Amino acid sequence: MDFHEFDKTMPVDKAVKERIKAVEKMSGAKLTHISHYSIDEEETVKKNIENMIGVTQVPLGVAGPLKVNGKEYIIPLATTEGALVASVNRGCKTINLSGGAKATVVDNRMTRAPVFSCESASKAVEAAMWIDKSFDEIKKLMEEDPFLKLLKVRSWVVGRNLYTRFECFTGDAMGMNMITIGVEKVCKYIEENTGAKWLATSGNMCIDKKPSALNMIEGRGRRVIAECVIPEKVVREVLKTTPDAMIEVNYRKNLVGSAQAGSYGFNAHFANIVAAMYIATGQDPAQVVSGSMGFTLIEKKGNDIHASVTVPCLKVATVGGGTQRETQSEALDIMGLRGGGKPAGANADKLAEVMASAILAGELSLVAALAAKHLGRAHSQLGR
Amino acid sequence: MDFHEFDKTMPVDKAVKERIKAVEKMSGAKLTHISHYSIDEEETVKKNIENMIGVTQVPLGVAGPLKVNGKEYIIPLATTEGALVASVNRGCKTINLSGGAKATVVDNRMTRAPVFSCESASKAVEAAMWIDKSFDEIKKLMEEDPFLKLLKVRSWVVGRNLYTRFECFTGDAMGMNMITIGVEKVCKYIEENTGAKWLATSGNMCIDKKPSALNMIEGRGRRVIAECVIPEKVVREVLKTTPDAMIEVNYRKNLVGSAQAGSYGFNAHFANIVAAMYIATGQDPAQVVSGSMGFTLIEKKGNDIHASVTVPCLKVATVGGGTQRETQSEALDIMGLRGGGKPAGANADKLAEVMASAILAGELSLVAALAAKHLGRAHSQLGR
Amino acid sequence: MDFHEFDKTMPVDKAVKERIKAVEKMSGAKLTHISHYSIDEEETVKKNIENMIGVTQVPLGVAGPLKVNGKEYIIPLATTEGALVASVNRGCKTINLSGGAKATVVDNRMTRAPVFSCESASKAVEAAMWIDKSFDEIKKLMEEDPFLKLLKVRSWVVGRNLYTRFECFTGDAMGMNMITIGVEKVCKYIEENTGAKWLATSGNMCIDKKPSALNMIEGRGRRVIAECVIPEKVVREVLKTTPDAMIEVNYRKNLVGSAQAGSYGFNAHFANIVAAMYIATGQDPAQVVSGSMGFTLIEKKGNDIHASVTVPCLKVATVGGGTQRETQSEALDIMGLRGGGKPAGANADKLAEVMASAILAGELSLVAALAAKHLGRAHSQLGR
Amino acid sequence: MDFHEFDKTMPVDKAVKERIKAVEKMSGAKLTHISHYSIDEEETVKKNIENMIGVTQVPLGVAGPLKVNGKEYIIPLATTEGALVASVNRGCKTINLSGGAKATVVDNRMTRAPVFSCESASKAVEAAMWIDKSFDEIKKLMEEDPFLKLLKVRSWVVGRNLYTRFECFTGDAMGMNMITIGVEKVCKYIEENTGAKWLATSGNMCIDKKPSALNMIEGRGRRVIAECVIPEKVVREVLKTTPDAMIEVNYRKNLVGSAQAGSYGFNAHFANIVAAMYIATGQDPAQVVSGSMGFTLIEKKGNDIHASVTVPCLKVATVGGGTQRETQSEALDIMGLRGGGKPAGANADKLAEVMASAILAGELSLVAALAAKHLGRAHSQLGR
Repeated sequence: MDFHEFDKTMPVDKAVKERIKAVEKMSGAKLTHISHYSIDEEETVKKNIENMIGVTQVPLGVAGPLKVNGKEYIIPLATTEGALVASVNRGCKTINLSGGAKATVVDNRMTRAPVFSCESASKAVEAAMWIDKSFDEIKKLMEEDPFLKLLKVRSWVVGRNLYTRFECFTGDAMGMNMITIGVEKVCKYIEENTGAKWLATSGNMCIDKKPSALNMIEGRGRRVIAECVIPEKVVREVLKTTPDAMIEVNYRKNLVGSAQAGSYGFNAHFANIVAAMYIATGQDPAQVVSGSMGFTLIEKKGNDIHASVTVPCLKVATVGGGTQRETQSEALDIMGLRGGGKPAGANADKLAEVMASAILAGELSLVAALAAKHLGRAHSQLGR
Repeated sequence: MDFHEFDKTMPVDKAVKERIKAVEKMSGAKLTHISHYSIDEEETVKKNIENMIGVTQVPLGVAGPLKVNGKEYIIPLATTEGALVASVNRGCKTINLSGGAKATVVDNRMTRAPVFSCESASKAVEAAMWIDKSFDEIKKLMEEDPFLKLLKVRSWVVGRNLYTRFECFTGDAMGMNMITIGVEKVCKYIEENTGAKWLATSGNMCIDKKPSALNMIEGRGRRVIAECVIPEKVVREVLKTTPDAMIEVNYRKNLVGSAQAGSYGFNAHFANIVAAMYIATGQDPAQVVSGSMGFTLIEKKGNDIHASVTVPCLKVATVGGGTQRETQSEALDIMGLRGGGKPAGANADKLAEVMASAILAGELSLVAALAAKHLGRAHSQLGR
Repeated sequence: MDFHEFDKTMPVDKAVKERIKAVEKMSGAKLTHISHYSIDEEETVKKNIENMIGVTQVPLGVAGPLKVNGKEYIIPLATTEGALVASVNRGCKTINLSGGAKATVVDNRMTRAPVFSCESASKAVEAAMWIDKSFDEIKKLMEEDPFLKLLKVRSWVVGRNLYTRFECFTGDAMGMNMITIGVEKVCKYIEENTGAKWLATSGNMCIDKKPSALNMIEGRGRRVIAECVIPEKVVREVLKTTPDAMIEVNYRKNLVGSAQAGSYGFNAHFANIVAAMYIATGQDPAQVVSGSMGFTLIEKKGNDIHASVTVPCLKVATVGGGTQRETQSEALDIMGLRGGGKPAGANADKLAEVMASAILAGELSLVAALAAKHLGRAHSQLGR
Repeated sequence: MDFHEFDKTMPVDKAVKERIKAVEKMSGAKLTHISHYSIDEEETVKKNIENMIGVTQVPLGVAGPLKVNGKEYIIPLATTEGALVASVNRGCKTINLSGGAKATVVDNRMTRAPVFSCESASKAVEAAMWIDKSFDEIKKLMEEDPFLKLLKVRSWVVGRNLYTRFECFTGDAMGMNMITIGVEKVCKYIEENTGAKWLATSGNMCIDKKPSALNMIEGRGRRVIAECVIPEKVVREVLKTTPDAMIEVNYRKNLVGSAQAGSYGFNAHFANIVAAMYIATGQDPAQVVSGSMGFTLIEKKGNDIHASVTVPCLKVATVGGGTQRETQSEALDIMGLRGGGKPAGANADKLAEVMASAILAGELSLVAALAAKHLGRAHSQLGR
């Protein structure tokens, strides 16, 4: 029997149990812990997963509180990497003692990028021009979903392919699904009016869950910057190193080293903090990919340091998707950021700013640990 | 009181409870579900996390069984993205009806890349040459950990910086920590013998948790390929589209589209499957970043299609880190891949092969959905 | 005596002669051929070079005529690579027999990108917003040069750095200098009004003469596409191979191979044709760098092939710079494209279209040679 | 009549003249200057070009002398970009006053990378393993050309494609042709022994004349570093700026700016110097593409600056190809580097070191001009 057959013949809770039994029988495994959970199966199966057999319990810790734009936030981190929470915590302390982080969402746009196949490049160019002219009609079609605002449509012609990119505001939702539905209506419209053949709803110029220069440059989700001036005294006392050592490590590792590696991540470990907060708060963990891109800069400011992280591509939501699950929304509650903001998008903006500030905390702590050369030691002591 | 103070003054289980209370009090949140878990707090706090307050419950589903190299594996996927498990499941069915996937680990090496600062470029070049000559001594120093084998040391000089890259075999463990410890011993040794100043244990030529051409080309973790020939009949009946449509979508989206986007991911959604399996089995989810890189090829073979995924940089372990946690090791049990393999590395090899095959399943299903243009529909029906 | 001292104390022609003598004396070389030239020294020294000692004589050949958008053009190629002219010539014949190339300039914008240093990221964001609001004033300042039109100003904030990018129309001139002069005026204006410190006139977001995803995606200079449908018969008779072989080679080499190489050049040898035409017509040969980026697509169309080249970043001029030199303007005369077009930019547009079509010719011939496996042979016979 | 028909029916010199006449007639152009040259037509047509009509006269200037590794070299630069020679000259003066440049060739390997098509990925893996085992036989086959040494063969499997990369030492020649001929013999041998189908002699993992991370990381041609410590006094008096200003511009422009641009060129204008010296000395100007990649670092050293350029991919030759032409070999004579070195490769090594040092001169001068903000001015005064 197929795993998804159970759902058709019995209530969800029973289906989960029967499926566990089936898996146990087939594999010989004993799924005691997987089947230990408190989440609402019916809701979960409706919104988040198929063929459910239970949950993965990911250890959840807290760092902080961390002062961001004048307000304190406790930072929830779901991880199994020993030393990570402690490291972020040290960064939080550093930032707090320096007056807190200043964080700003600089840009915000979610994208979907269908590809059209045309008879020739010149036909593709014509279709691109038609799309440009028809922005108002396209916008109207897209915006049937009241939370969606179409900001821009861009086109690239490559040979006889027409790649479009629809850039949208989606409030506090991550928004991929509402855009996809809107875009598919528009694709039909374009196909009918230009003769360009709608080939696929995504032509990878979105570009979703793959590292790319396009998104590092143009942004997808929120582009957010967090910064802080750390007094020399705090560098010495909390981070156990010197401003000059941190500046040098950041320069030789995060800039020159990443450059020679052909990397889009000019940072130490954005991905660690992004992953831990994404899992904790119900974001899409495959989006860690683009969250790992970006720049850590540590520069002299008098005797102190100016430290910043620039995260060009952070996807966050406070409604929809995984944020609705029980532990995940509790984690949002810890930060006071569950649900839709006022105006729409305000909660997700704040979440992005807190996340960027936590990333800054993580960067400061790891760069300092490297500068002071106690990386191996930290991991030995705090688990492996 | 700092969150980590609790651990110093009371037993772990009590510390977790008190910390929850503190967080609830500070935030006003009610953490009912986060504090509902069955994992061993003491072990978890020792190995995986600090400042623990409980767990994030990530819904876990199963796809498959999927036939890989002649054997059937149930695929555990922890996700909150509705439709993902169903999509992978459809891919598994496709592959099984085509005789199963063939998967091969082509290469396997974990890396750590310290950076040294030298007086001049010519001094850096000298130090690099000294390292080359001293491979045997370095190997001996590194291999005090019996699970670690040093395979190669590479050097790049950029200006007066010396970037080294230590490539190691680490058996069934992900291995970053054992390498880091070994490398730090070697760094001291190099510093003493060459005058090159050991600046940081990682100079980002590792390169860890950042997307990079270096790792796409040279590999980090396992380079693994999964392939399958899908008969036209199966494409039509299970994937509801045609070989030609799949080939065209793959070409225009995953190759040309990704090329124009400046992406290192010439695929549809590797990251989704990698993230879901990583979380389910206790891998480091920040490593999704490099798992998202790679190539999906779909080509004509007679009337059928030859489909393959090439994943240059998959980090997997069956021992250590998050794999030791309760639900995560149960998920490994589902596949019969918990713990160390014989010979060392064999279980992690198999896990990599199963994962690549599941990725192939995911690619086939999504490319087919795009070709048949029922992406938006699938997401509407199966949750958002 | 310094090489540039000569110019101060004697007429240009004498200075050149004396400088040759000095170089001969210092080096022991005999510069018979370098001092054999017919160009106007005074004009050359005024506009194109300092410390002139003569010329490099680069062999110049012709391919074609090549039919582009219905008109025939002789293609001038300055090169020392044996077999290149012959190869392009074969491509021209292929295209002509297929009815000629269709080429289109899709986009056209030259850029200059100053960087500003700010006190903080938030100040940088404020300055970026001020620039957005002040577009009209900035445009007025820039457009004192009547040939210059400011199209757009973009901003990126990275840490506390503000990177701007001024995108301009520059008619038939390459236009870097007129933009630089205009931008420097604007930089002062921005500095005075925002407090952002104008650090450098180029912050490498232009980005000039370095390969970059930014320019591959956003374009710099002209984005131009050339295409042609080649009947099977022509493929067989002129290119000595089959449509399927060409399609396969293009797919495995120019798409998959370049993808694995982390390249921005999804083509066979754009750079060869770009370099040879740039030198022949007096373009800036350092711009070959960006001209090497782009996409060759060869696809089935019935029994025939649809071949196209998409060149996202082609810098061409028909006035100014090296185009004014004697042999270079004669080469433009060969194509009937010397001097300013009507309207401004029309001649440079045509030059870009002819160049893209010549690139297409070069791609067709080389891909066919590879498919037919007579690359080594061709070079052996035609020089090395 | 086709342009290449002339060569079949008359002596070369007459063919050139008749071809000029034909071009003049067809185009209406008057080719006075193009037909003014002193090079040997017969040799040129045999080795360097087809369908010759004459030459492009590229203005040639000299900078320097520049002290490199203790010896003085005059730098020949063929360019039409006003201010370039003057700028390099200023850099030379800066370096000389600082004791000269130290330059080192760190690595040297030319590559060719055929692609094979296999029945399956697992067959491709088998073929790759066969190649590994057969290195000695392959080396023997390749090295029939006495100047060629095979250093390494590498393989990448992507789907069912096998990409190989043959890395060779080619002495003082650029070496592409000798490698191509050797590789084609090897390809047949591999095909016969493994069943892998030799698809094309280049599968773009070479990767030739396209910008790529692969070559930035692995090198192609020579990887060369030039460095110099510039005393503060020299910075102030010759470069008219301060150490701090240069360091800041280099950091914000060449590192952070290029990083945000997704560039492989972390420098100001390597390409300008590479192009001018390539044309002057008869190198392949299409190779400017890879010569534009690399790193300029400017760092504090006490009160002075340590400046370096790292050029990972510089292709130079002193024999063969365009170096044999008259003006080009005179330019090599100016540096005392014409012809083969002792041992083989020594002259090309020196040329690479001189070129890197000239690049360093160009970087110093331009970064200083940007720091002192007289870029626009310089171009206005010295031509456009």
